[in-house]
Amino acid sequence: MSEGDFAGEGDGFALTQAQVTIVGLGLMGGSLALALQHVGACREVWGVARRRENVSQALAKGALQQGTTSLEEGVAGADIVVLALPVRAILEMLPRVGALVKPGCLVLDLGSTKAAIVQAMRDLPAHVRAIGAHPMCGKETSGFEAAERALFRGARFVLTPLERTDETAMRLALALVRAVGAYPLLMDAERHDVLVAAVSHLPYLASVGLVAVAEEVSREDQEVWDLAASGFRDATRLAASEVRMMSDILATNRRSVLRMMRLMRERLENLETLIASGDEAGLQEILDALCTRRRLMFQGGNR
Amino acid sequence: MSEGDFAGEGDGFALTQAQVTIVGLGLMGGSLALALQHVGACREVWGVARRRENVSQALAKGALQQGTTSLEEGVAGADIVVLALPVRAILEMLPRVGALVKPGCLVLDLGSTKAAIVQAMRDLPAHVRAIGAHPMCGKETSGFEAAERALFRGARFVLTPLERTDETAMRLALALVRAVGAYPLLMDAERHDVLVAAVSHLPYLASVGLVAVAEEVSREDQEVWDLAASGFRDATRLAASEVRMMSDILATNRRSVLRMMRLMRERLENLETLIASGDEAGLQEILDALCTRRRLMFQGGNR
Repeated sequence: MSEGDFAGEGDGFALTQAQVTIVGLGLMGGSLALALQHVGACREVWGVARRRENVSQALAKGALQQGTTSLEEGVAGADIVVLALPVRAILEMLPRVGALVKPGCLVLDLGSTKAAIVQAMRDLPAHVRAIGAHPMCGKETSGFEAAERALFRGARFVLTPLERTDETAMRLALALVRAVGAYPLLMDAERHDVLVAAVSHLPYLASVGLVAVAEEVSREDQEVWDLAASGFRDATRLAASEVRMMSDILATNRRSVLRMMRLMRERLENLETLIASGDEAGLQEILDALCTRRRLMFQGGNR
Repeated sequence: MSEGDFAGEGDGFALTQAQVTIVGLGLMGGSLALALQHVGACREVWGVARRRENVSQALAKGALQQGTTSLEEGVAGADIVVLALPVRAILEMLPRVGALVKPGCLVLDLGSTKAAIVQAMRDLPAHVRAIGAHPMCGKETSGFEAAERALFRGARFVLTPLERTDETAMRLALALVRAVGAYPLLMDAERHDVLVAAVSHLPYLASVGLVAVAEEVSREDQEVWDLAASGFRDATRLAASEVRMMSDILATNRRSVLRMMRLMRERLENLETLIASGDEAGLQEILDALCTRRRLMFQGGNR
């Protein structure tokens, strides 16, 4: 059964017939527009950005059929609105979007934390469909210049349904995820936030911590930067993430982030104790187990 | 002036006339053999490995003119001996090598920490030349299979001279570094160890800590692994490093490693406090500064 088979079926409509309006044309929104266009996944892709240059750039790259700086103009005729913004911009935007869209429109967001957003979606007007989403991919570069149509390919794409998420909403969200080559992963919003605190937000903070230590050491010896090679580069890549995005993440996922920081502190203190006491057997046992764990994880290549 | 101009000049000899014997045919030793052969940097490259298969593999790949499992046979005729082994294997090997090599032979090592090795080199017989070295490159894969002739290209290659390091030793070491496309960086062994503790050993431990936290979280929710994307992959790449090599590093650089772990703990505690107290302005100021710092560092691409 292709997505087209749903056309006109009851209340449902197909992704292929939909006007998708993407609000925010940065790395995520821009990549989504390019990916949808590339496979002709929907009837039209519209884009909304605050700055005129971003709209022009996306239009010039063929990412959009229509582009505008006006939210009202952009979302009025949309069947699906995708909010591709930092988390707190999404939280601010939701009530406005809810008031502007036509009945039956699906509002979906790509925010990096989900509990606060899903909570805010509960207050959307009853005639608006909604679902939370979070594609598990990214780069430390941002803006439309960094956008690429293959960004989502092979990535997990978390969907966090609400009680109000009906079958049509779920079907459209799944179709969109698959259209861009990603794998849908259904999950409760709170659970998502706990897990990404462990594998995304904590690694960001550790990465920031490593740059901070090197910076501190560089005050007594500048040459520390000359010794930083590919290991340091990779371990600290996340420290170059967009600060606006990360601040929103840390502010809207504070409890889980703090919990993971406590766990990290315990793990590091444990390693410190083993090193300080010269307990090599104990240390090697841990290093071996985690080395094996890490090697098994990414055996399949660059997921 | 080419390296060849030194041929027969006083006590000196040229790299191009030298038999270089590499002891240890893993990632580093194997890559060095391939790199030296590729540019015809020396008269002959010999290889010594404990296991016959490794010697055969290196010979089959054209990395060596001669290969043997006998240290004595391998180093007896060498003009330069390169010890490409984990740090404590180098420490064990040094007195044996010192007793086997001919007068004037240069012993150079590629160990990841330098103070203990340089200290041990002081006890070599007076007729043996010596210098410490550490190429700032690597991969988390190991063994000759992982070796590649371009491994050193563009990398910094630290040289840590001793008092006994004469002009000939320094000249040969510089020629070897340049032959494989690396950039020499002269440095005191103790200083090297402090700096790599910051940009290499601490990042390894942070990476291990991150895998440990994810492992702990996975005990309550297996799906945490499904959410680990490229950010986690890069932040934890170092956790997959060879444990034998890392244990030797941690054991021979304990003081600096522990100092860096304390600095890391302080930095992470500082971030934790700012997040817990909701001091967003204070947090952003730090994140912004370190984001800029990190972006500036690797602007030149993948060094």
